[in-house]
Amino acid sequence: MTTPSRRADTAEPLHDLLAERWSPRSYVADHTVTEAETTALLEAARWAPSAQNRQPRRFVAGRRGTEVHARIAACVLERNRVWALRASLLVLGIVERVGHDGAPQRFAEYDLGQSVAHLSVQAQHLGLHVRQMGGFDAEAAAAAFGVEAPYAPLVVVAVGRATAVEDLEPELVERDTAPRQRLPLHELVRQRA
Amino acid sequence: MTTPSRRADTAEPLHDLLAERWSPRSYVADHTVTEAETTALLEAARWAPSAQNRQPRRFVAGRRGTEVHARIAACVLERNRVWALRASLLVLGIVERVGHDGAPQRFAEYDLGQSVAHLSVQAQHLGLHVRQMGGFDAEAAAAAFGVEAPYAPLVVVAVGRATAVEDLEPELVERDTAPRQRLPLHELVRQRA
Repeated sequence: MTTPSRRADTAEPLHDLLAERWSPRSYVADHTVTEAETTALLEAARWAPSAQNRQPRRFVAGRRGTEVHARIAACVLERNRVWALRASLLVLGIVERVGHDGAPQRFAEYDLGQSVAHLSVQAQHLGLHVRQMGGFDAEAAAAAFGVEAPYAPLVVVAVGRATAVEDLEPELVERDTAPRQRLPLHELVRQRA
Repeated sequence: MTTPSRRADTAEPLHDLLAERWSPRSYVADHTVTEAETTALLEAARWAPSAQNRQPRRFVAGRRGTEVHARIAACVLERNRVWALRASLLVLGIVERVGHDGAPQRFAEYDLGQSVAHLSVQAQHLGLHVRQMGGFDAEAAAAAFGVEAPYAPLVVVAVGRATAVEDLEPELVERDTAPRQRLPLHELVRQRA
């Protein structure tokens, strides 16, 4: 079995956990994550930094086969649902837009992004892959899990094992094996000294 | 020299790059980062994922001793400036709030957060520390670096080597050596199955 390697093309070497990370569109449908792995992923999210340590983020997590997984998958837009259903674990990422003191939390989205990034680094360490998606019905997800203002669902995170190249559906082979693309460094970095 | 270890207290073990990461308030004032290290940090930021690979983030980076570093530090609020001036590298993180197609980029902050998280994991791998801060004058930073809508500065990222415990100023000893705190896992994770 060949898990596609799509190593980042960098001017200086990156740590493998970063260089080898990529976001698959197809997961092994009978792969499972353990309770301990799930805990480790959530602990990674938990220990990410946040502005003034306010931690304006919450999560709902369901392993495949559970009602929670099915309810998260049901909120995912149809074009994503096929592969979301196969993910070993689905995590709903929620932002807290207003703090307990009534002040807007300007870094809520930023801090959730950090937190999911830490989760995805831990996933890579565990031999898992992660794909994040904004393409889901946030209102339906809020209703499904009783998420009320100032909290709001922002992202669905699919965790699993990427399908081996030889098992990919034909229409995915190109998308999931093509070289990954990014803006060149000199466009990303406007000024440097 | 003892760099403080403030390892995360987790129910399952995390990869060291995540568990050992923390955000210091004091940096070694004569530590420098190399050009190659700077490139690796920016490459880490570059290869982070983003919604639809839109990469709604840009950076300005200056090593201590450069005009860019001085100009970023000058935008930092006074309470942060003392330690920001000592950082080996200051990075200004910029979001792109509207895409080239005129559509608002709802994931701009989220994606910048991911990107800086990847930078901070690479920093940890290089034996460096990172502190991110929202406490700076974003308008002054925009003016200093010609950042115009739909781009906007959101964060200043200070990178360097944390001061050894025995060299910490007395008022920082407690803050920079106390156990790190997070919400308990059962509060962070609202439902799990």
